Amino acid sequence: MNNLFIPPLDRKIGQKVSSYIDTLTKPKGSLGKLEDIALTLSKMTGEPFPIVTPPGVIVFAADHGIVEEGVSSYPKEVTTQMVMNFVNGGAAINVFSRQIGAMFKIVDIGVDGEINHENIHSKKIRYGTKNFLYEPAMTRKEAEKAVQVGFEEAEAFIQKGVKCLILGEMGIGNTTSSSALLALITNSSVENVVGYGTGISDDQKKKKEEIIQKAIEKHQIDNINDGYEILSKVGGFEIAGMAGAMLAAAKNRIPILLDGFICTVAACIAKLIHPNVCDYMIATHRSVEQGHSIALGFIQKDPLIDLNLRLGEGSGAAVAYPMILSASLMLKEMATFTDAGVSEKQGD
Amino acid sequence: MNNLFIPPLDRKIGQKVSSYIDTLTKPKGSLGKLEDIALTLSKMTGEPFPIVTPPGVIVFAADHGIVEEGVSSYPKEVTTQMVMNFVNGGAAINVFSRQIGAMFKIVDIGVDGEINHENIHSKKIRYGTKNFLYEPAMTRKEAEKAVQVGFEEAEAFIQKGVKCLILGEMGIGNTTSSSALLALITNSSVENVVGYGTGISDDQKKKKEEIIQKAIEKHQIDNINDGYEILSKVGGFEIAGMAGAMLAAAKNRIPILLDGFICTVAACIAKLIHPNVCDYMIATHRSVEQGHSIALGFIQKDPLIDLNLRLGEGSGAAVAYPMILSASLMLKEMATFTDAGVSEKQGD
Repeated sequence: MNNLFIPPLDRKIGQKVSSYIDTLTKPKGSLGKLEDIALTLSKMTGEPFPIVTPPGVIVFAADHGIVEEGVSSYPKEVTTQMVMNFVNGGAAINVFSRQIGAMFKIVDIGVDGEINHENIHSKKIRYGTKNFLYEPAMTRKEAEKAVQVGFEEAEAFIQKGVKCLILGEMGIGNTTSSSALLALITNSSVENVVGYGTGISDDQKKKKEEIIQKAIEKHQIDNINDGYEILSKVGGFEIAGMAGAMLAAAKNRIPILLDGFICTVAACIAKLIHPNVCDYMIATHRSVEQGHSIALGFIQKDPLIDLNLRLGEGSGAAVAYPMILSASLMLKEMATFTDAGVSEKQGD
Repeated sequence: MNNLFIPPLDRKIGQKVSSYIDTLTKPKGSLGKLEDIALTLSKMTGEPFPIVTPPGVIVFAADHGIVEEGVSSYPKEVTTQMVMNFVNGGAAINVFSRQIGAMFKIVDIGVDGEINHENIHSKKIRYGTKNFLYEPAMTRKEAEKAVQVGFEEAEAFIQKGVKCLILGEMGIGNTTSSSALLALITNSSVENVVGYGTGISDDQKKKKEEIIQKAIEKHQIDNINDGYEILSKVGGFEIAGMAGAMLAAAKNRIPILLDGFICTVAACIAKLIHPNVCDYMIATHRSVEQGHSIALGFIQKDPLIDLNLRLGEGSGAAVAYPMILSASLMLKEMATFTDAGVSEKQGD
């Protein structure tokens, strides 16, 4: 990623589109955040009428050594089982991907199990990360490779025609890894970045906090701005993969729809690797997971909606996608006052 | 509407669906408000797998005599011009209706102009209401007839297969009528229910408040719980039509997606006519128009999202519809833990 070029936003087209929106047959500003999104999409894509169809969903799956410490309420096998659920089309992200007509891809980037299926992209870095309570989760080389895998998977998807990227994840234990990453990146106290994950008890949450606290005290970070180093200490392969995919989207001027906590932590990692990547991100929803707001703060994004979601898989971003589509269709299909022969506001 | 029967919600199926949602392959409660909506849809329709496609959008259009007082920033002709824009497919509600695959219908229930077009349902009660600063907006008979028109239009639409109803309006001056209605219904101070409408200035807003204040002082209301009487004093034909359409939806167990301020005031009128109608309403978004929260309070609904919208036409409800669809598809298409062979939470 050393020579990665991420184009700046097209502010010139932004000005044109902003003026054009005010000629559409509605009171100025009356479509609120949809107008903001339309403008944002134009600046990202450099197009006066940005197209966001078809969207593409990539789900990265991997396991976490830290699960040995009992941080999750689900057993580790659930990662593999859920990958098979994705293949069979029965998970929430499958349902919502079909609803929005998304291209869909599952990448095994580090599941601790054998899952060979023609519909799974096998890009396993290793059979799960190591237990970062005792040793680094992965080597720096593995972190780089995982980011590269994500980058290449997204590149291939974009070559196939994806115009808007949604990133999902599956990995039992990955809120623990995400909380540890976020504590390190933002220098936040562990209590502020740990939530209830898939639904642990208060006692389990306390234990999870203690484990993360011990882990981050254990690992010496030489450079807090080095995304690969932080990933290697307490990261996850799927988180690295999502970060890499975001970098590829930004390179190609493709809007990225962020999902919840884990996805947004991956966005923080992507920002450390190349800060301009954030120009191509839209935060779709605010997760129940409390660290999410801190992660959103680090990338300076406000989410569009809040539906009390905490599932992950990219599901919240897929549910929010139709609003992004609405914004693009508003631009493309609404009549102007002149075209429609509608009188403008008096005094304007 | 005297003998109208609105069936109660099906709480029995609600209990079954609530248990079923917890068997789907996701942590319990992790789809937040989507789970609540799925449950609500089941109770409304009485179906374990409620269907909300195709949605139907009815836009009621009418003019307002009060516009003579300069309460709007747009000239009255805009109502007729916008109706033609609806016919030609160039308005926001057209764009979003196409996006969601909605059946679409425009009803002229009182436009002050000749608009004959094969795609407009001509159900004109009169050429606009009277100026309610000086006289009642309409007679009681006209109010009843307008509600009846809305009821019949929705009934016909539901017979054609509409499974979820979105109601929109067009009528220059109709925030003024809505604010007056809401002040009367909720006994709120005029300042609290008046907003900037299509975008008036602070001075214009002050004038709008004074006009509404004068008007509501002028009209003696015998029975504050009589929706028809309140409508007749300061209402609008399109608002009455929307209320009638809501009553028809509720009678037929069809979910109603509320849009913004004017639509929600129509919901308040519908509630006065038959309180059970509220059981079939879902508030989709919170409008910028400040009276909206007061109207939502009267029908005891919390909106799903807030996109700073203030356009009307049913546009916000149409934009939110895909989330309602997501909730229904979650129920219908997600695999259960058993079906998918996924291990359940430890300790459950």
